[in-house]
Amino acid sequence: MLNPVTPEFEETLRALLPAAAFKNDTAPYLSEPRGRWSGQGFVVAPASTEEVASVVRACAAARVGIVPYSGGTGLVGGQLLQEGPRPVVLSLERMNRIRAVYPSENVLVCDAGVILADVQKAAEDVGRLFPLSLASEGSARIGGLLGTNAGGVNVLRYGNTRALCLGLEVVRPDGSIWHGLTRLRKDNTGYDLRNLMIGAEGTLGIITGAALKLVPRPVGVGAALMAVPSPAAALELLALAGAQIGEGVSAFEIMNRQGFDFLAEVGPETKQPFDTLPEWCVLVDVGLSAGISPEAALEGLFMTAFEAGLVTDGVIAQSHAQRDAFWYIRENIPEANRRIGSVSSHDISLPLSAIPEFIHRGEKALAEVGVFRINCFGHLGDGNLHYNVFPVAGRSRADYEAERPAVKRVVHDLVHAMEGSISAEHGIGRAKVKDLETYGDPAKLEMLRAIKDALDPLGIMNPGAVLRQRSMPPAEV
Amino acid sequence: MLNPVTPEFEETLRALLPAAAFKNDTAPYLSEPRGRWSGQGFVVAPASTEEVASVVRACAAARVGIVPYSGGTGLVGGQLLQEGPRPVVLSLERMNRIRAVYPSENVLVCDAGVILADVQKAAEDVGRLFPLSLASEGSARIGGLLGTNAGGVNVLRYGNTRALCLGLEVVRPDGSIWHGLTRLRKDNTGYDLRNLMIGAEGTLGIITGAALKLVPRPVGVGAALMAVPSPAAALELLALAGAQIGEGVSAFEIMNRQGFDFLAEVGPETKQPFDTLPEWCVLVDVGLSAGISPEAALEGLFMTAFEAGLVTDGVIAQSHAQRDAFWYIRENIPEANRRIGSVSSHDISLPLSAIPEFIHRGEKALAEVGVFRINCFGHLGDGNLHYNVFPVAGRSRADYEAERPAVKRVVHDLVHAMEGSISAEHGIGRAKVKDLETYGDPAKLEMLRAIKDALDPLGIMNPGAVLRQRSMPPAEV
Repeated sequence: MLNPVTPEFEETLRALLPAAAFKNDTAPYLSEPRGRWSGQGFVVAPASTEEVASVVRACAAARVGIVPYSGGTGLVGGQLLQEGPRPVVLSLERMNRIRAVYPSENVLVCDAGVILADVQKAAEDVGRLFPLSLASEGSARIGGLLGTNAGGVNVLRYGNTRALCLGLEVVRPDGSIWHGLTRLRKDNTGYDLRNLMIGAEGTLGIITGAALKLVPRPVGVGAALMAVPSPAAALELLALAGAQIGEGVSAFEIMNRQGFDFLAEVGPETKQPFDTLPEWCVLVDVGLSAGISPEAALEGLFMTAFEAGLVTDGVIAQSHAQRDAFWYIRENIPEANRRIGSVSSHDISLPLSAIPEFIHRGEKALAEVGVFRINCFGHLGDGNLHYNVFPVAGRSRADYEAERPAVKRVVHDLVHAMEGSISAEHGIGRAKVKDLETYGDPAKLEMLRAIKDALDPLGIMNPGAVLRQRSMPPAEV
Repeated sequence: MLNPVTPEFEETLRALLPAAAFKNDTAPYLSEPRGRWSGQGFVVAPASTEEVASVVRACAAARVGIVPYSGGTGLVGGQLLQEGPRPVVLSLERMNRIRAVYPSENVLVCDAGVILADVQKAAEDVGRLFPLSLASEGSARIGGLLGTNAGGVNVLRYGNTRALCLGLEVVRPDGSIWHGLTRLRKDNTGYDLRNLMIGAEGTLGIITGAALKLVPRPVGVGAALMAVPSPAAALELLALAGAQIGEGVSAFEIMNRQGFDFLAEVGPETKQPFDTLPEWCVLVDVGLSAGISPEAALEGLFMTAFEAGLVTDGVIAQSHAQRDAFWYIRENIPEANRRIGSVSSHDISLPLSAIPEFIHRGEKALAEVGVFRINCFGHLGDGNLHYNVFPVAGRSRADYEAERPAVKRVVHDLVHAMEGSISAEHGIGRAKVKDLETYGDPAKLEMLRAIKDALDPLGIMNPGAVLRQRSMPPAEV
């Protein structure tokens, strides 16, 4: 069992760090983006790896839990400890230096507290691209993005966050430092600790620095919205895009008409791109090297697809502004969803070829639970759907408290039966600990536990995230 | 301490598996490609995951070590146990089914004993590419390639083997099976066990099946040999290629004149591509999508580079045969090296920008040890050099026994000082266990040991590979 932060322990920490490291225990650190859960804790913001290490050593000595806090944008409660002994909330916000940029190596090394948009900017300043891109990029920080192996819109082309990281610096649960900040593309010297730390959601150590991979900036970029007759046609279009444009396809997002209807109903205001709203459409984004224009590539794709009956309508962006407008629609669907208020939201992935059947079976299965509006959209290129279930018009989230568990179970059972994942890109945090126990392979669960116990024997690192604390039940959400 | 395979234990295994599973304990299983080390063991070749599991359960019960044996092409002795109690050598050769191909998902699922060339062929049959490519592809098997996180010539574009794997099936050291054979592109449900098993060299479990990532086949391929005035110019050319051709650059290999001289000296016979042999040249290989010809792209690159003084001469392949001829040179340099016989070979990686200085300093440092011929070549795009040190003409490897340790130490010390890796793509096996102990970060070494002990508490999985056995010294090599 862990100990709470006591006034005496607060004094211990105050003796270790300068006054600037101490923050008020206020909302940004103790609430989540949608206001669903609140946490507790004593907030400390060290400014260096050594300061992080000194805090961790003190916590280890006193058996006090540590909740690493990065940008605070996580959606599964990994940054919030609701119950149990009051922990230290360790914010990375003051570790915000870009340590070095190596344009000739396509590498950038930074503190874990740097905001994603600042990394993107630093890459752009040297003519490179850091391709990780997601809605919260203006506030999400690198440490949390690595800790959760964040996804986003460019995974199809550039991979998840783990694919964009070459090396890490990590403060271990005993306060020692793993100096793994390599800029190497190849290094086969022992187990892959980097990928073990990435996605571990701060339960095995605190990422304090990272060497990130940059890529060449595409010479030309473009986008098209294409109406497709079905999800199956969208998948065939994806394969066709791969065959014609290769790795040049940066993003391939699917949107259902429901998302457009929500935007019309509650905003934000967007410009309707089609004369007649299709049931399904995809946003195809490309970034190409010299010698071929994005518009020509997208036109070629559209023509081939049209002849094959894979698309029924389409708009190819003729300017950067029009491309931005397409993305504005896609990126505001989550905001419209938030305004409507979901009964239950699911960040799921499936084998690509299973998606049409999943959409079909999901609709049928939910109809047996009740009457809902389903907004299914997301990163089709990655098999990652945000499958969100909403009240019918005129009713609200609060009216569906009774149905919520059944909705969630129906969706997750179906995902599991079809060999999918109940958390594609958001992670486990505390909200999905029970789901992981329910759906996780038993051998896998044993290994997760063995690794946690081996690397954090005191159990102080982000207690209750990913795996339940031995002495406590998982959080109720 | 482990127990040896006794006649009684042999009978236990014979009762578990059909007669076809038992092989003679002969050379292919007990020697390495260059004949440097020999192993020992009782060879068993199960034909299914369940059979593997039953062997492992028996070994766990009897505390008998298991050496997983895949294609036997490893160069660091990971597949050979020279000393200690006689182990079971578990060959994957009879697990050679391609289980399923999903062209629309770009996924192939296979047994771990499938030969790499057979996977490449199965991908080609459905119009896709499995881009892992290396000299031993005709005999290397998927399990070993994953176990060692093999590299090869296309890492620049497609990543190491780990980047080409979506899911794994693994028999754990207690004989239970982890069913992690997912075809998902995104799955953030707990620690990254897949990447932990990949590169663990069979010390945490036996990979029995894998879901592999396929990619679209490039529409057009091409290659060029370009003479560069220096390694620094080669790096600038690499950056220029990225800027102009983007991800279309599949391979970027550097070769020193020494390799051409060795080919001339001992063969295999190759056609000399340049009128005057340059000190350094690079082989640039591209694969492009529709709309742009590889020859045009390479010509564009050459012209820009020539004007910038980055290349002095060049030949662009005008046919597939000519491209093959370029690759024939590159791929036969290791064979020429073998015929000459190295004093010491090093599979190293460095931060890209450090390479010119490393080459300069390496030459100087070795000159203080003795007089050698250095053949430095390899995957420049990945910062991965095969930095091999040879006798002067007229002398042989055997004449240099006394100098070998000093040569190795000088090279590895320099690599380490310049933040490089002493094993870029070959792994640790048994030959580099001491090197890992010498050069590895202490915190990292502690974590490796903790993970090994947590996941293989009996220490039966590939004992002495990667980490020394607790009760035994590391192998002398």
